[in-house]
Amino acid sequence: MRKPDHKTGRSAQQRRRPAAADDDRNVTNLRLKPEELTPEMAAYFAKCEEKLGFVPNVLKAYAFDMTKLSAFVAMYNDLMLAPSGLSKLEREMIAVAVSAHNRCYYCLVAHGAAVRQLSGDPPLGELMVMNYRAARVSERERAMLDFAVKLTAEPWIVEEEDRARLRHAGFSDRDIWDIAAVAGFFNMTNRVASATDMRPNSVYHAQAR
Amino acid sequence: MRKPDHKTGRSAQQRRRPAAADDDRNVTNLRLKPEELTPEMAAYFAKCEEKLGFVPNVLKAYAFDMTKLSAFVAMYNDLMLAPSGLSKLEREMIAVAVSAHNRCYYCLVAHGAAVRQLSGDPPLGELMVMNYRAARVSERERAMLDFAVKLTAEPWIVEEEDRARLRHAGFSDRDIWDIAAVAGFFNMTNRVASATDMRPNSVYHAQAR
Amino acid sequence: MRKPDHKTGRSAQQRRRPAAADDDRNVTNLRLKPEELTPEMAAYFAKCEEKLGFVPNVLKAYAFDMTKLSAFVAMYNDLMLAPSGLSKLEREMIAVAVSAHNRCYYCLVAHGAAVRQLSGDPPLGELMVMNYRAARVSERERAMLDFAVKLTAEPWIVEEEDRARLRHAGFSDRDIWDIAAVAGFFNMTNRVASATDMRPNSVYHAQAR
Amino acid sequence: MRKPDHKTGRSAQQRRRPAAADDDRNVTNLRLKPEELTPEMAAYFAKCEEKLGFVPNVLKAYAFDMTKLSAFVAMYNDLMLAPSGLSKLEREMIAVAVSAHNRCYYCLVAHGAAVRQLSGDPPLGELMVMNYRAARVSERERAMLDFAVKLTAEPWIVEEEDRARLRHAGFSDRDIWDIAAVAGFFNMTNRVASATDMRPNSVYHAQAR
Amino acid sequence: MRKPDHKTGRSAQQRRRPAAADDDRNVTNLRLKPEELTPEMAAYFAKCEEKLGFVPNVLKAYAFDMTKLSAFVAMYNDLMLAPSGLSKLEREMIAVAVSAHNRCYYCLVAHGAAVRQLSGDPPLGELMVMNYRAARVSERERAMLDFAVKLTAEPWIVEEEDRARLRHAGFSDRDIWDIAAVAGFFNMTNRVASATDMRPNSVYHAQAR
Amino acid sequence: MRKPDHKTGRSAQQRRRPAAADDDRNVTNLRLKPEELTPEMAAYFAKCEEKLGFVPNVLKAYAFDMTKLSAFVAMYNDLMLAPSGLSKLEREMIAVAVSAHNRCYYCLVAHGAAVRQLSGDPPLGELMVMNYRAARVSERERAMLDFAVKLTAEPWIVEEEDRARLRHAGFSDRDIWDIAAVAGFFNMTNRVASATDMRPNSVYHAQAR
Repeated sequence: MRKPDHKTGRSAQQRRRPAAADDDRNVTNLRLKPEELTPEMAAYFAKCEEKLGFVPNVLKAYAFDMTKLSAFVAMYNDLMLAPSGLSKLEREMIAVAVSAHNRCYYCLVAHGAAVRQLSGDPPLGELMVMNYRAARVSERERAMLDFAVKLTAEPWIVEEEDRARLRHAGFSDRDIWDIAAVAGFFNMTNRVASATDMRPNSVYHAQAR
Repeated sequence: MRKPDHKTGRSAQQRRRPAAADDDRNVTNLRLKPEELTPEMAAYFAKCEEKLGFVPNVLKAYAFDMTKLSAFVAMYNDLMLAPSGLSKLEREMIAVAVSAHNRCYYCLVAHGAAVRQLSGDPPLGELMVMNYRAARVSERERAMLDFAVKLTAEPWIVEEEDRARLRHAGFSDRDIWDIAAVAGFFNMTNRVASATDMRPNSVYHAQAR
Repeated sequence: MRKPDHKTGRSAQQRRRPAAADDDRNVTNLRLKPEELTPEMAAYFAKCEEKLGFVPNVLKAYAFDMTKLSAFVAMYNDLMLAPSGLSKLEREMIAVAVSAHNRCYYCLVAHGAAVRQLSGDPPLGELMVMNYRAARVSERERAMLDFAVKLTAEPWIVEEEDRARLRHAGFSDRDIWDIAAVAGFFNMTNRVASATDMRPNSVYHAQAR
Repeated sequence: MRKPDHKTGRSAQQRRRPAAADDDRNVTNLRLKPEELTPEMAAYFAKCEEKLGFVPNVLKAYAFDMTKLSAFVAMYNDLMLAPSGLSKLEREMIAVAVSAHNRCYYCLVAHGAAVRQLSGDPPLGELMVMNYRAARVSERERAMLDFAVKLTAEPWIVEEEDRARLRHAGFSDRDIWDIAAVAGFFNMTNRVASATDMRPNSVYHAQAR
Repeated sequence: MRKPDHKTGRSAQQRRRPAAADDDRNVTNLRLKPEELTPEMAAYFAKCEEKLGFVPNVLKAYAFDMTKLSAFVAMYNDLMLAPSGLSKLEREMIAVAVSAHNRCYYCLVAHGAAVRQLSGDPPLGELMVMNYRAARVSERERAMLDFAVKLTAEPWIVEEEDRARLRHAGFSDRDIWDIAAVAGFFNMTNRVASATDMRPNSVYHAQAR
Repeated sequence: MRKPDHKTGRSAQQRRRPAAADDDRNVTNLRLKPEELTPEMAAYFAKCEEKLGFVPNVLKAYAFDMTKLSAFVAMYNDLMLAPSGLSKLEREMIAVAVSAHNRCYYCLVAHGAAVRQLSGDPPLGELMVMNYRAARVSERERAMLDFAVKLTAEPWIVEEEDRARLRHAGFSDRDIWDIAAVAGFFNMTNRVASATDMRPNSVYHAQAR
């Protein structure tokens, strides 16, 4: 609830250090020396630069060890970009709703931008970040997000009736695997990011607003 | 963690209904007929239009009853705009950190915009929405936010040592009241907004990005 | 489960300092100098003295700032005393059930007394303080309390089906607003009271037992 | 926060059914036929009548099986009445603080009355019911209550440093056992009472106010 | 998810001190001198030696006070061994599922062994320890375990519809009492064990695997 | 707390269907047709058969898609088997403590066995499953487990002081990454396993007891 006249006090604030000041240089709070990129990874980084205009910080964070970086990239690309019964936007919506439960700054910034971009609908990105339950999404999307967030919050109570709800919403068994795998993956990366204070590329903030 | 090539599947998505489609018309999920504005409230709405370019939806939501609207406006303006040991930005930071705990869509959108605007630093707004603990704020700001969020999450365990931490960070007893009062106020409005599915003016989304 | 013979050890205990010893003098743990009462507030305090026999401590707590006191009184009186589809007792029951979730000593003492008094039924006051679910109330009252307490505990999961349950129990949209507003208000005051260690007037304890 | 003029609406409320109407007849929600009391238990019930003026409902609830009743009475009397480094009042304070965490109506009513009576200080009973952290108790009492409530809420994180805190507050190893045993006992009875909707004797409500 | 080649690093590990090294000698972390056993308790200990081959550590822990030991044994034997509509295995399953919620090492080890032994099915014991919801048990058993664990986790929300679910699954009112009493009892002993760091007899670990 | 005489009722129980009856055939609750193994994966499965005597069910679960299987195996083998400042046992201890928080049946069975085997100390495996806080491990191990479990339970509150505690316990920045990565990985697999009702190979239960 914001209302008129926010003017006062501004000059003091303008002297604050920008919140994302070092985020593009100090990607994590751990001092880990980058390894030399393998040719495959160098090509991948080049492709990022070309398509996105930058290399996502998470890749730089993993670049201290080429085996880890390659394994991460292989799993990520399969999960988020390979053919699936879930659209890319649906997978990004899961990514953000899971990351919102886990309050992961890195993933919310990076994948919130992806939702805005893929959907062409900036408020949809905000809704996934803030409270997916407030979004007016389809029944299919709602069932998918409910499953992913329940699996995030209390995996031990997920049972057959939860899978039944997904099937009822039109998802196949393979789709259920994919929902679980994407939700699981972000439960992993959320924790790696939080454990290391991983910072998102500052460019994400203004994307697709 | 977003990486190259989000292109496919987009055309399907572009046909989605925009997430904020009706937010400027259907402000809540309750059907409550607006009362005629009192002259004082009419003048206030006019001032909003003039300064902000729009009337915040929360005011429209309360406009079914002039007594309630006036009481809300009086308390809001005193808390957020009157002189205080807390800057306006600090009060907005509390508003957003509290609303993030409560995952209140309305307040996060409206006051997230206020933090971006007052600070001139869009990522600071995102940090308050996503996880204030990831923000590199001053010790004073951190103490203030920790108190406000603890008071939100578990008010029953707030005790003298919590107040002592605020005093140690430089806050006066009057400042402590103001932190508590702002945090308390958003614990109220978060619940009124969630209970009624209150929707923020769509214009906030693009502000101060 | 209490059983015979509690006699021993008593003399030692009788020397304990009474638990409410200073509650009527040190209303909060903050040192805030009272402002001079405005004529309107002076009249209101006098009316309290006349009708209740005392000025509720919360009013004294706010009396360091007349703007804040007036705003609080205006909102409180509208919510709790103005005409509404909810009876005064219903509003007080919400106040206590919410305050019980938040374990707010001040509000439980003051509003627990109000429930005892308005209902003429002391155990009803105890039930609201201890566990409203154990009370044998009407379906309407139960729906109202369930909504208020869910809104208190996890506002982010309150959705259309929760409002539907209230409508099904006979509440109008305006009633839903009032339930939300009262529950929200006590979520505010519970936090102001906890943040400041606000103490209830000791006279409440014996009222309407 | 209660203020003047609660008069209106009262006549409607006075027609409500009293909240404790059947509590002295329907002690639980289970239909279990009382067994004939053994001579030992008959004598014990007679002693209750003589000293308290009534037989506590919990005893009537167990009276469907003399073995269970005797085992309960033996354990209860040892824990709460036998010599211990903890005073009877301290044991009752633990009983109430634990029952408040578990929101057990039966135990809060019965043992809240015991705290009021043993201490001669009604507000102390209220504080144990509402939020023991708001009570101005001795460091010894606070350490004892903190241990009992932590053991109630999250027994799996109680460790050597928790015991050390009790020793530091002056408790012996035997005292630690007694604190644990009393806290444990009420974690049992709270659950038996909640599982069966056990109702307290209505006479407790007005005792020692 | 374990896969090939766990060989390396073993020699280092073999030098670790065994995890249960002192568990048969230092039964708790409290120094409490054993009392002389009463003839009745001496006979009971002898019976344990004869039938089990050892005296359960919990009995040694209580042996500092014969009144407490006798009361504990009387209640335990009635609850777990006396005739009941619940089989001994069912009562042990409740014991383990409750202790798993409370993460009580002593009770999980001792009663996990009991489930393995009584059922003749070692994985059933593991399922009760790890997540009873993953076990493919009968509807009756599932209803019983759901009730016991809900009563453990949030006793304050157990109500008539929970009892109704048990009745629907074929349980009598007396059975409901027994489920509640067993669940309650382990909520007590779990806390006594955690409070005192009670260690299980090491012999349990290999039993009935 | 188990005591003498568990004999009665056994014959009835022996007719129960074994709890792990189908676990080696129906690995998950999803119907996903296995793809033909790639030569690389066929060789890996053969190596499992040779070294372990069986192919872990998780591999069979992923075998419906060779890209997913390969990515999983690559990440798993790097994390759990490649050189690291953490011993293989330490990594398995993290796996189990994390899986215990998430109550994941598959991972607790498979990795509990690994802890028993690598340590040569069966009770250590039980402690990791039941409550790692009850284990008498080194300060280094405790710090590692505390970090991993906090990161699992509330990743959003992991901050610099948590990393500082690890450094103080002797861990390097690379070690911190590895702790986070292993904890993160099991937060992923726990959820995939729970989402699909993945069942562990029954052979694990009796291993290294």
